[in-house]
Amino acid sequence: MALTLTPLTEFPLVRPGDDLALFIWQSLGRSQIVLQDGDILVIAQKIVSKAEGRIVHLSHIEPSPRAIELAARCEKDPRQVELVLRESREVLRVRPGTIIVEHRLGFVCANAGIDHSNVSPVAEIGEALDPEGWLLLLPLDPDATACAIRQRLEAASGCQVGALIIDSHGRAWRLGTVGVAIGLSGLPGLVDLRGEPDLFGYKLRITQVGAADELAAAASLVMGQAAEGTPVIHVRGFPYSAREGRLSDLLRPKDEDLFR
Amino acid sequence: MALTLTPLTEFPLVRPGDDLALFIWQSLGRSQIVLQDGDILVIAQKIVSKAEGRIVHLSHIEPSPRAIELAARCEKDPRQVELVLRESREVLRVRPGTIIVEHRLGFVCANAGIDHSNVSPVAEIGEALDPEGWLLLLPLDPDATACAIRQRLEAASGCQVGALIIDSHGRAWRLGTVGVAIGLSGLPGLVDLRGEPDLFGYKLRITQVGAADELAAAASLVMGQAAEGTPVIHVRGFPYSAREGRLSDLLRPKDEDLFR
Repeated sequence: MALTLTPLTEFPLVRPGDDLALFIWQSLGRSQIVLQDGDILVIAQKIVSKAEGRIVHLSHIEPSPRAIELAARCEKDPRQVELVLRESREVLRVRPGTIIVEHRLGFVCANAGIDHSNVSPVAEIGEALDPEGWLLLLPLDPDATACAIRQRLEAASGCQVGALIIDSHGRAWRLGTVGVAIGLSGLPGLVDLRGEPDLFGYKLRITQVGAADELAAAASLVMGQAAEGTPVIHVRGFPYSAREGRLSDLLRPKDEDLFR
Repeated sequence: MALTLTPLTEFPLVRPGDDLALFIWQSLGRSQIVLQDGDILVIAQKIVSKAEGRIVHLSHIEPSPRAIELAARCEKDPRQVELVLRESREVLRVRPGTIIVEHRLGFVCANAGIDHSNVSPVAEIGEALDPEGWLLLLPLDPDATACAIRQRLEAASGCQVGALIIDSHGRAWRLGTVGVAIGLSGLPGLVDLRGEPDLFGYKLRITQVGAADELAAAASLVMGQAAEGTPVIHVRGFPYSAREGRLSDLLRPKDEDLFR
């Protein structure tokens, strides 16, 4: 079966307090997509963060001594480093431009996923502040948000669907960012193929597929990076059946991590 | 524009010496797909390795003293470890069941990408050897193979297409394998969005998208892991224009690697 990823058209700009499930439902209508059982909506982290009001202005941040020390090493604004530390459990590496951390949500990423670009200095939250000073933090609880959006879409459509919130992460050994799951509901994070026989009847060795991350990468490709105009992707043909996955399924336990 | 990934149907089992470009062309016909400019064919590493005859039987391998020493630490067959060493430039980590190496092709992966499962003990290459002893090595030069397949398909179709050879890799900090590019031709590996303005006119910070890896993950999702029956995926709607990418575009230079 084919896998089809379609960007929702004319998705509105999102502001703090906006109702994302409603926006998605309306945009599905404008895109002439009628939901079916097994469809998945993939949602860019940025619009979830904006809807949750996870926007901070640097002028409101007081850096700690540790943030000031780290900022000198990574050549960043100490107030931005302070936000990175507040959003993180542990600092893994520091180099100019980059702090690699374990985020409070459990994954390893650069700069705690805090983003400069595309933050709108909308009237509700900003006065005459430096428009470059707005930063967007990751959503508070992306699994819960994915679940809430999924339930709203299921109630509206009468179909069983999935919801996946994604961000773009760098990798340890490869260049370029790829989309990864940071919150999910109604689809599996990992699919365990251990023990299923292959074509010749041998038992497969350990194979766990990062299915939600593979879908995140696929949707990220369709979203692009600069295109805030397509923050939601409709997916049809996801090859695994619905299941209650969660972000933590995809995170390697610290004691199995060979690369800290 | 939508991205559509369609598995080619009735793809034959591949044996050493087989003509993959011909198989793909024929399977496109059976799948009633007419190639268009910009289409991409994503090909599983396994069938490239098989066509190249990269099949080795453990009984033909003499382990070195270093392989015997490492095999004790990782609890693997010393002959298999010998093959891992021959296919690698450097050993990064060793733990029971896994050797993390820099492969001779330049990427970091587990066990040099050497695979047990789905190797057919076909009459041409095997006698009465233990059928579990066959191992499949990665292709010799996947960029070159992707280029050759692309050129054959372009000559047959009169269209400009891309070819991408993929494998599944684990990640440092996340569970589950995801598809990654190991050879490509006619599409970009990385897409550089540095300096393009965002919706509000700000300059985006450094953003390089691992576009070929995102497509590899998408296609891997459609292939599944156990399904050797769908080793080639047809892609329509890849959002970036054709360009001569290569595997090395996607590899982080060793001196920028924070996690060795």
